[in-house]
Amino acid sequence: MTSPYGLHRVLEPAGVLPQQAWRLDASPGCGADEVVVDVERLNLDAASFRQLRERHGTGAALRRAVLDIVAERGKLQNPVTGSGGMLLGVVRAVGPASPLGLRVGQRIATLVSLTLTPLRITDGLAAWDGTTEQAPCAGTAVLFGRSVAAVLPADLPDELALSVLDVCGAPALTDRLVRRRAAEGRPVGSVLVLGGGGKSGSLSLAAARRAGASRVVALVPTPGEAARVQTSGLADEVVLADARDPVAVLAAVGRPVDLTVVCVDVPGCEHGAILATAEGGTVVFFSMATSFPAAALGAEGLAADVELLVGNGYVPGHAAFALELVRSEPAVRALFDHRQTAQA
Amino acid sequence: MTSPYGLHRVLEPAGVLPQQAWRLDASPGCGADEVVVDVERLNLDAASFRQLRERHGTGAALRRAVLDIVAERGKLQNPVTGSGGMLLGVVRAVGPASPLGLRVGQRIATLVSLTLTPLRITDGLAAWDGTTEQAPCAGTAVLFGRSVAAVLPADLPDELALSVLDVCGAPALTDRLVRRRAAEGRPVGSVLVLGGGGKSGSLSLAAARRAGASRVVALVPTPGEAARVQTSGLADEVVLADARDPVAVLAAVGRPVDLTVVCVDVPGCEHGAILATAEGGTVVFFSMATSFPAAALGAEGLAADVELLVGNGYVPGHAAFALELVRSEPAVRALFDHRQTAQA
Repeated sequence: MTSPYGLHRVLEPAGVLPQQAWRLDASPGCGADEVVVDVERLNLDAASFRQLRERHGTGAALRRAVLDIVAERGKLQNPVTGSGGMLLGVVRAVGPASPLGLRVGQRIATLVSLTLTPLRITDGLAAWDGTTEQAPCAGTAVLFGRSVAAVLPADLPDELALSVLDVCGAPALTDRLVRRRAAEGRPVGSVLVLGGGGKSGSLSLAAARRAGASRVVALVPTPGEAARVQTSGLADEVVLADARDPVAVLAAVGRPVDLTVVCVDVPGCEHGAILATAEGGTVVFFSMATSFPAAALGAEGLAADVELLVGNGYVPGHAAFALELVRSEPAVRALFDHRQTAQA
Repeated sequence: MTSPYGLHRVLEPAGVLPQQAWRLDASPGCGADEVVVDVERLNLDAASFRQLRERHGTGAALRRAVLDIVAERGKLQNPVTGSGGMLLGVVRAVGPASPLGLRVGQRIATLVSLTLTPLRITDGLAAWDGTTEQAPCAGTAVLFGRSVAAVLPADLPDELALSVLDVCGAPALTDRLVRRRAAEGRPVGSVLVLGGGGKSGSLSLAAARRAGASRVVALVPTPGEAARVQTSGLADEVVLADARDPVAVLAAVGRPVDLTVVCVDVPGCEHGAILATAEGGTVVFFSMATSFPAAALGAEGLAADVELLVGNGYVPGHAAFALELVRSEPAVRALFDHRQTAQA
């Protein structure tokens, strides 16, 4: 019996979920509700890649470190950071009971973390020089009944599609929250995006406006980024402040907003987000650098009656929604292209 | 000019909020929107007390450690744990512009953390032997315009009132969430409380049923606690499982619920809470041991479309609501009394 959560693939310790497991069974036989993928590329999570590079440099030592993790654990979960990444590949086999709707031969990206994805590497990562987190890779991976994968669109470059899919939860949840307020008969009003010039930030700006927000504010850290977001037209107001400085954030935003979306991947943005949000409003945190106690105690200490949401990266339809935003909003695509050029 | 957030009391570093500050001005002069309190007792946060005791033992060394922190920082914020606690005292002065509605002579408990409350100690903590986190204390504390304090009820023992006030956010938010679902026309349905036998847990059970939940489930870790909750009648079902074991939690709960309230103060309860919650449902985390990445990545990894809420300890009216539950629900009071006896 296979489990939709992949419990049958857990080798050690017994009885835990694949993400908590130390070691998974990564053999490429396809269970009844599983999908097996021929891997083309691994996309290491930024935190994991940084740690591994600082420890092992680039080249052979870094390759060896990743190979050792995968050989030992049956998945690419960095034991220091606990994080993983995603992968890109081609569907090799689809079990008769798989609910994912995939077909053999489709090129896909996994939207569940590598921390829970059974993985076997067969090429020694020979084609990876270790200078970026994008590792060309031959091998196999397994998806469960409850996994999530997106078919890669034919009309967008892989790099762009992957970088959109990586953050596709943020615009989908922003869309839902703005629409929910409208459906509840509360004024839709204003949305603030901390880090509005980034990937998840620019998508969230576009999603907020489409969903009907009447005042969309982007907060960014540098004049250069402010100019780019201003030019994009994605926000009604672009303000400049350090998101870690609550007093500066409040001053920059002025009138508090109904919904604040935190897309800044640095610690210490909780209080600014809370201060900038009106009573009865909502803050949604998409940054993995968010501190749970800082958010909870911060709101309490400020006597702020705001709803604080953990940004759940899974919203049904999120991948298609984000890809459609990039296709139809040239300004979003321009910001993504700029970031990729700047990184390269 | 005084700031409702207490910015005018921040000495170092300049421009941050009192909670982030290293040092506050704790002088007992009463600003226009401030309230000054004659302190009777400090209630150290459990994590802070544990750290201080492990480091300094009881008696003079422990007293000295606390006095040094307060002398240096102008507040009782443990530099190692970052946490504080609350205090009990009598209102000495009320500024003309204070919005808190307090009167001179009222006995109050502060519901904002000691980590942001200007505090001066004048008796050397001479009456505290350091064996419990309740420290008799003479001195002064300052409340800001946006602070929160509760007048201590005359009809309940201090110990009981303090221990209720300490967790009063959980039942108030549970009440709001259950009622909101009803108002939205979604079936009110089922509520699961992880740690249903504890303080915030038993209050949340009572709040859920009052708000109209038709199936209230308590999950507890031991047969003894299960028997007590069963006897209390606060839950329709009492189930036994380790909240850190997602697979066991799901098996124990059976049919997933609409709302899961996490009141278990140990790490690792995120995945069980998510698995036990139905699609479209809500999880609210009240435990400070909650890991933000574990919650966010857990939901994503399980492809769980659930709303994840950080348990904001501030909900308007929370103190009065929780005290009223204890007064009117003998079963809740019995569970509180049992815990206090068991601790003593």
